[in-house]
Amino acid sequence: MPTAGARMTALDLDDDEALVIFEFLSRYQESGQLTVAHPGEDRALANLLCLLEKQLVAPFGPDYDRALAEARQRLSAPE
Amino acid sequence: MPTAGARMTALDLDDDEALVIFEFLSRYQESGQLTVAHPGEDRALANLLCLLEKQLVAPFGPDYDRALAEARQRLSAPE
Repeated sequence: MPTAGARMTALDLDDDEALVIFEFLSRYQESGQLTVAHPGEDRALANLLCLLEKQLVAPFGPDYDRALAEARQRLSAPE
Repeated sequence: MPTAGARMTALDLDDDEALVIFEFLSRYQESGQLTVAHPGEDRALANLLCLLEKQLVAPFGPDYDRALAEARQRLSAPE
């Protein structure tokens, strides 16, 4: 699944966050609808954002828009 | 941020996935709207779900509904 050669971002979610985000994403995969079903989901998503902010360098660099566009493109390329 | 005493779920996102999910969650935090802005976001969210499926035990247990309810409750409790 990882893009070849890409650095990895290690995230330590606690099990509550992991389970609640799993359910959120499972619903999206099954229904095609993105919805928040419980305040605990909001908290889990906010915590995940906080973890990503701590790990990532790109969001605070001048090339954010380009880095984002390239990442989206690589992810959506046919395998 | 982690719930006291909770086990941790370690996730290795590649940097493309991490950046694209960061942008997805940032938009949600700023706008209150959950939207997918690019096919690469769909792929990143699907990859995150896949990682969580591999790590978690609870989704495949008989107590999933209870475990989910308890996790949501703990996450939404006042700090």
